[in-house]
Amino acid sequence: MINDLPIGLSARHLAPEDHLRVLGVLDTWWGGLKGTVGATERALLLPRLYFQHFTTTSFLLEHDDGEIAAFLVGFLSQSEPDTAYVHFIGVDPTLHGQGAGRALYRAFFELARSHGRRYVHCITSPENTASQAFHARLGFTPSTVKPDYDGPGLDRVAFVIDLTEEPVTPQQ
Amino acid sequence: MINDLPIGLSARHLAPEDHLRVLGVLDTWWGGLKGTVGATERALLLPRLYFQHFTTTSFLLEHDDGEIAAFLVGFLSQSEPDTAYVHFIGVDPTLHGQGAGRALYRAFFELARSHGRRYVHCITSPENTASQAFHARLGFTPSTVKPDYDGPGLDRVAFVIDLTEEPVTPQQ
Repeated sequence: MINDLPIGLSARHLAPEDHLRVLGVLDTWWGGLKGTVGATERALLLPRLYFQHFTTTSFLLEHDDGEIAAFLVGFLSQSEPDTAYVHFIGVDPTLHGQGAGRALYRAFFELARSHGRRYVHCITSPENTASQAFHARLGFTPSTVKPDYDGPGLDRVAFVIDLTEEPVTPQQ
Repeated sequence: MINDLPIGLSARHLAPEDHLRVLGVLDTWWGGLKGTVGATERALLLPRLYFQHFTTTSFLLEHDDGEIAAFLVGFLSQSEPDTAYVHFIGVDPTLHGQGAGRALYRAFFELARSHGRRYVHCITSPENTASQAFHARLGFTPSTVKPDYDGPGLDRVAFVIDLTEEPVTPQQ
């Protein structure tokens, strides 16, 4: 299902039973970014519906012992037939730099292509500079910071990649 | 696009430009339910992505002067081919009882049917008894309260309707 996975990780699609487990690891992984407000933001951004209705375009990576290593929640745009969207990606910080996030995105790009999608969009918060650097390395182009993009006080940076121009030999 | 609309209202699909306008009316309509926590919950439950990627399955009702009267955000399940989902519906409380919410749901049911969907799912919070009564009148069957359904502390009641059994002469 996913190529070039770090050793010891296996991949499958998300399922409803994963919902609370994924929420459980988020706060640890995000290092408490923005405190309890950030924790609530992250939970509300991942309602159960993504684990019910977008499972076939979403992935989970697990360690051999079943512990969650990383996940990606994405979907095919229902309005824009050339577009797919990554709503949320999370990687255990102890695995950063080992290619888990890249492998998830590559799998999603492949899936998007197989459904005739050319563009993949995603967003991140302006505070999350690590995420911004990661997306740039993958070949995404960032916007400037868009104030109130997701509502009052919820500024975002928006990214897009043209899958026909995805770097063949990506920088690590 | 939508039948049986209250007089003076017109319907169209949602667009990205509607996002902040819709968020703007929510707090007023919800009567401040759960205070600022509730306001943040509602904003985070409606990120811009719904106004970008699920526009063709989402509707807006406007007054003649362009003011927002009601809206419904829904989608076709990407994982369950017999299922559609209503993520959020809001109706100006001054219009309650006039059939705007019912008209939105009827339009969504019709759209879901046209895509071969048999079931429509949605959820509401246990505090929102008006919403629970409204969904029961439409023919939805409620679950018991599901603790932590959408995350820790985010209890929900889940509803489902079988469109092949939708009441032909619904109660008002």
